[in-house]
Amino acid sequence: MKNSLAAKLRQGTPCLNGWLSLPSAMAAETMARVGWDSLTVDMQHGVHDFMSAVACMQGIAASGIPALVRVPQNDGGLIGQVLDAGAWGVICPMVNTAEDARQFVAACRYGPAGKRSFGPNRAAAFGTADAPYHTFANDEVLAIPMIETVEALENLDAILDVSGVNGCYVGPSDLSLSMGLDARFDREEPAFMSTLDKIAKATAARGQFAGIHCLSAGYARKMVDRGFLFTTVASDAYFMAKGAGMAVAEWRSNA
Amino acid sequence: MKNSLAAKLRQGTPCLNGWLSLPSAMAAETMARVGWDSLTVDMQHGVHDFMSAVACMQGIAASGIPALVRVPQNDGGLIGQVLDAGAWGVICPMVNTAEDARQFVAACRYGPAGKRSFGPNRAAAFGTADAPYHTFANDEVLAIPMIETVEALENLDAILDVSGVNGCYVGPSDLSLSMGLDARFDREEPAFMSTLDKIAKATAARGQFAGIHCLSAGYARKMVDRGFLFTTVASDAYFMAKGAGMAVAEWRSNA
Amino acid sequence: MKNSLAAKLRQGTPCLNGWLSLPSAMAAETMARVGWDSLTVDMQHGVHDFMSAVACMQGIAASGIPALVRVPQNDGGLIGQVLDAGAWGVICPMVNTAEDARQFVAACRYGPAGKRSFGPNRAAAFGTADAPYHTFANDEVLAIPMIETVEALENLDAILDVSGVNGCYVGPSDLSLSMGLDARFDREEPAFMSTLDKIAKATAARGQFAGIHCLSAGYARKMVDRGFLFTTVASDAYFMAKGAGMAVAEWRSNA
Amino acid sequence: MKNSLAAKLRQGTPCLNGWLSLPSAMAAETMARVGWDSLTVDMQHGVHDFMSAVACMQGIAASGIPALVRVPQNDGGLIGQVLDAGAWGVICPMVNTAEDARQFVAACRYGPAGKRSFGPNRAAAFGTADAPYHTFANDEVLAIPMIETVEALENLDAILDVSGVNGCYVGPSDLSLSMGLDARFDREEPAFMSTLDKIAKATAARGQFAGIHCLSAGYARKMVDRGFLFTTVASDAYFMAKGAGMAVAEWRSNA
Amino acid sequence: MKNSLAAKLRQGTPCLNGWLSLPSAMAAETMARVGWDSLTVDMQHGVHDFMSAVACMQGIAASGIPALVRVPQNDGGLIGQVLDAGAWGVICPMVNTAEDARQFVAACRYGPAGKRSFGPNRAAAFGTADAPYHTFANDEVLAIPMIETVEALENLDAILDVSGVNGCYVGPSDLSLSMGLDARFDREEPAFMSTLDKIAKATAARGQFAGIHCLSAGYARKMVDRGFLFTTVASDAYFMAKGAGMAVAEWRSNA
Amino acid sequence: MKNSLAAKLRQGTPCLNGWLSLPSAMAAETMARVGWDSLTVDMQHGVHDFMSAVACMQGIAASGIPALVRVPQNDGGLIGQVLDAGAWGVICPMVNTAEDARQFVAACRYGPAGKRSFGPNRAAAFGTADAPYHTFANDEVLAIPMIETVEALENLDAILDVSGVNGCYVGPSDLSLSMGLDARFDREEPAFMSTLDKIAKATAARGQFAGIHCLSAGYARKMVDRGFLFTTVASDAYFMAKGAGMAVAEWRSNA
Repeated sequence: MKNSLAAKLRQGTPCLNGWLSLPSAMAAETMARVGWDSLTVDMQHGVHDFMSAVACMQGIAASGIPALVRVPQNDGGLIGQVLDAGAWGVICPMVNTAEDARQFVAACRYGPAGKRSFGPNRAAAFGTADAPYHTFANDEVLAIPMIETVEALENLDAILDVSGVNGCYVGPSDLSLSMGLDARFDREEPAFMSTLDKIAKATAARGQFAGIHCLSAGYARKMVDRGFLFTTVASDAYFMAKGAGMAVAEWRSNA
Repeated sequence: MKNSLAAKLRQGTPCLNGWLSLPSAMAAETMARVGWDSLTVDMQHGVHDFMSAVACMQGIAASGIPALVRVPQNDGGLIGQVLDAGAWGVICPMVNTAEDARQFVAACRYGPAGKRSFGPNRAAAFGTADAPYHTFANDEVLAIPMIETVEALENLDAILDVSGVNGCYVGPSDLSLSMGLDARFDREEPAFMSTLDKIAKATAARGQFAGIHCLSAGYARKMVDRGFLFTTVASDAYFMAKGAGMAVAEWRSNA
Repeated sequence: MKNSLAAKLRQGTPCLNGWLSLPSAMAAETMARVGWDSLTVDMQHGVHDFMSAVACMQGIAASGIPALVRVPQNDGGLIGQVLDAGAWGVICPMVNTAEDARQFVAACRYGPAGKRSFGPNRAAAFGTADAPYHTFANDEVLAIPMIETVEALENLDAILDVSGVNGCYVGPSDLSLSMGLDARFDREEPAFMSTLDKIAKATAARGQFAGIHCLSAGYARKMVDRGFLFTTVASDAYFMAKGAGMAVAEWRSNA
Repeated sequence: MKNSLAAKLRQGTPCLNGWLSLPSAMAAETMARVGWDSLTVDMQHGVHDFMSAVACMQGIAASGIPALVRVPQNDGGLIGQVLDAGAWGVICPMVNTAEDARQFVAACRYGPAGKRSFGPNRAAAFGTADAPYHTFANDEVLAIPMIETVEALENLDAILDVSGVNGCYVGPSDLSLSMGLDARFDREEPAFMSTLDKIAKATAARGQFAGIHCLSAGYARKMVDRGFLFTTVASDAYFMAKGAGMAVAEWRSNA
Repeated sequence: MKNSLAAKLRQGTPCLNGWLSLPSAMAAETMARVGWDSLTVDMQHGVHDFMSAVACMQGIAASGIPALVRVPQNDGGLIGQVLDAGAWGVICPMVNTAEDARQFVAACRYGPAGKRSFGPNRAAAFGTADAPYHTFANDEVLAIPMIETVEALENLDAILDVSGVNGCYVGPSDLSLSMGLDARFDREEPAFMSTLDKIAKATAARGQFAGIHCLSAGYARKMVDRGFLFTTVASDAYFMAKGAGMAVAEWRSNA
Repeated sequence: MKNSLAAKLRQGTPCLNGWLSLPSAMAAETMARVGWDSLTVDMQHGVHDFMSAVACMQGIAASGIPALVRVPQNDGGLIGQVLDAGAWGVICPMVNTAEDARQFVAACRYGPAGKRSFGPNRAAAFGTADAPYHTFANDEVLAIPMIETVEALENLDAILDVSGVNGCYVGPSDLSLSMGLDARFDREEPAFMSTLDKIAKATAARGQFAGIHCLSAGYARKMVDRGFLFTTVASDAYFMAKGAGMAVAEWRSNA
């Protein structure tokens, strides 16, 4: 089994990513049935630890949708654990320099390309006797640094030039804060847009992909139009809370 | 602390109930912030066991919203456990006869009114030194049999006449199946409507409340208009799946 | 998605069932990769509860192998829960009379054939918009009473004649105890063998299948030769303990 | 390994039992280090389910102290599960008649003495190759019905006469309620005392033991003096809350 | 909702902190009912991980008492996670230099004051539409470095001078070891006392608070008298073990 | 209670270590009954986190077999946590330099020998009033760096010369990759063998032990013959999968 998300992104197909912040394999399994191209377990700002991430990856396995993990930080030990457990990609927060990126990529790649330690457990099942997982993992696992600070923007080319980086992921809230703006998603300010355009172009020029976290499907489509191939819309908890809130509001407004 | 849901229902105030089918205290806590009058942990058709029900009740405690539990069946041991753990009401499936109802109510009430065994743990915190929980629990805990079969409809008066029954809850899917219809929520057929009207009237005549599971807020409002005081809209998993599905559909339709 | 085990058994194909006694989705997922026709979560003598059973069913879902559950007893509430959670069959201990069997089957079937309450959660995913799960569940879910007492043997025909029984499962240990023998698997005594033959014939005559728990693959093959279509070999914990014990013994014997 | 509690009780040695109401193997392990003769996991009024009971039994295993389980009700399936998981005794609530007692004992004993199904998992480790667990389990597992209603008092002799009953356990709160008193532990009223004396004598006359739940060590000693061989003092949660409350009070009183 | 502990400490009110070392939301909830000003989940020497810390914070939420977390080390990823999950303060071990303190504080503060990444989940509920959590979090979240080595004592002024440090916390055992003494709480040696006095004065001079872990309420009061505003007494497990041990001793001493 | 593994290794007795990769206390407890000299919870490539490691250590405690933990990386915070929770030794991956080794050893030793923070929880139970755990922990806890890269081989003497290193552990897969070979266990190539011999000799010369992960008992014995005192054979999951796979293959080959 290969990484269908990586294949689509390589072909330049825009992809839609779902986001898992609830530590519940049932929630993950439910999310896996609605048609995402990939699902990402958020171990940074979601309520997750390694075990809940594993449970969620098990919960979505039957759907055939690749699982990614956003780790809480650039931590090689944990990156190795989530890859062993079957993550087809890792989104790493706060990659602000080329050195950050090199360290991150090294954690995602077996030697000599990197320093990943050998010992896939769930991931081993992606391989076959003829083509064991570790023989193709370096080519299939996506290493996705987050661009979410002014410092990272300044080092964008250097970060993307690090061998093994497959694309990047914009965290709009942290990037906003770093740019002196309020934390918010789905921004429309021209200055912010031109920053996003710059990121999209920088990745496209290298055959990489740009990703971004969005709140609405409409905004995500705009981002696709601007060249972002990997767009996330909201999260499991967001959909639940929003739907519930709308139902309550409708019921109460008719009272 | 008393049961605010019971107080509202006693006053004839229509109440909006949320439904928890995901075994996740985080999901429950998120649901507890959107404005329901009560939240019910579904141990029958949700993915729950006793421990997840306790965790969810802890998750919603800070909101002050009363928790109810739908048990998988008329099981006195489990009913005692969820009450000890702080449920302010129990919804019991498949109460088809007065005898079923008597057995159910007995499990909800301390003697001499019933056979509930003494030993509140989380529930003890609802009481005070002057007014310990067990001195008012019989008055505050809601015993809510489900009316979901033709047999139950035939025995409706006898069931509602059982001392200690506070109201009833309609399961539209099972009731539909029992009436020879397809399993479905939010039905509009006149025959079904008149059945619901009969239930609403039978409860109202006794100072009890009628409840029903709905999928949409709009349908729930219609039920309120027909005399149902306790209306549930959908569930945590439903809101999540529906919101996610709509986002995916919108994104794809623009591709 | 339909029940591939049921299809094979209907065609008279001997099937090999694996047994899950460890409460670990990882163990279940590992077991699911070695080629069983089905896997059964043992909630009676395994260390399982409802949540671990759900986790194991999630763990094996990606393999496409149908999950069954052996419940601890003839308990309609729990049977409904495991079916809602995606079990394609239920093995029920201590079905000793036709009445036991009728009660058991009723818990496995939607009305009017039975009393199963509507509300599939994971199981709903087996259906499609055109063919929802509940429209075919009665035909696909296997109801498998255990024959494990002398009383059950005496009532064998009556039990198998209960409409909706798909086959039966022999528990050799309990049956041995009931027959005055020591608790043991893989027995060879002629009297025991003739009892097994009787069971195999009684099921075959009705187009049903006979199942039996075995310790060794060799014994299971013998049972296939005697007409048992559904054979279990050992369990996850057994394989682990035996393999570990043999490794320790080999290492120590060379010390 | 045999049941050291049973041995002491057989010899007429008063025993001190600890009580586990927190679903935490760490709490259980901590409790196991302070010198109890046995520890009971309370699945009725504690916050426990089967899995937390298993975890607690694992937590106390290293101490060598026998674990007992109080089940939530007279449920043969669950009784079998906790015995398989290594409980050396079962305390069963609300045994009010000889028939209740017979049903309870049957769940604790392998045939022909009872109906316990064969399949020890953790309990199997108590046996050896020469003396497997199931050959001595009937003699070592304690079946302890609770006497906690007026009805049970009236049927006391009949209950204790049921073959296989090892002793009984008084639940003072429920017994108080049933006698028309307020729910309370450590009562001193003469009428209540004489009831306890009657129970102690009835068990002693049969070579059985009487047990009772106490709040204080001092009261438990008084009960020993009155002939109760099996006395429980408070619980894990009680000690924690009381100690914490006293520390807070002392700190605040000096403010 | 704001941080009531921070408010009290700012006003110079001595506060009493409870300590959670058991990974049990039930234990936490029980502790939350006895009157502490705050409760700290100990992820360093308690038996906790992120998920148990979240569960405990949920368990105490209804009490309104602020939760703090002691992290196992100066780890920005984990510090961000526990803050997102609702910790109102972080106690960080082994802050021995001003650089350690700067790194620690940065993890606790949103930019530009620090490097905390945006994405509160449970913590978001502390805010309102008009005053979202992240607009006041930097002012309300307590950053509390531990002073527990001779090196830290030498750097005390430099550590406390780091902008954003709210106070400090003394770990008497580690400080004892570092000073060449045996590991022990509640010491009385004049040399140790004068060290504590120095710490209390250094914090008071800066408008900060000093905290210390004590075993007894009496010692904690003495520390308050010496100027410590934030005193912890023992822990959940300690109270449980001590109370249980005393009960056992009393019972046995009367045997 | 002391570390029986350390005692054997000090005496030069070859020891057999079992490996736990399944996050299941039941699996661990089952493994603990087959005769290993020690059991290691693999937090690097097993599916484990801190809590599952604790549960497994509880599961094996009754057997008296010492538990070790392989941590995911050289992380002082986590090393302290697993030692507090009762690990008698730590295996640390990717110790490639003397500085790595110094940092690792420091995390395993109380001051002044190291920087371990005081606060044993489960480990405290290994001590007595007269000889508390922390007075002998530095002598009994095994610090075992992994030698698994060419860089580590080059620095082998320097690593082993670090005070407090008790032995080393070879990870054959990673060492193979680092040497330009395919990832594999139980290699026989002369060049690899001579590398192993060099490691065995280097440890023996210092009174240390060499350890290695093997797949088969036969290979482990060969390693013993070459001077490896600490040999691991396979893992819980490996034995389970292999045994299950062989049973399936045998059954199918006879079909």
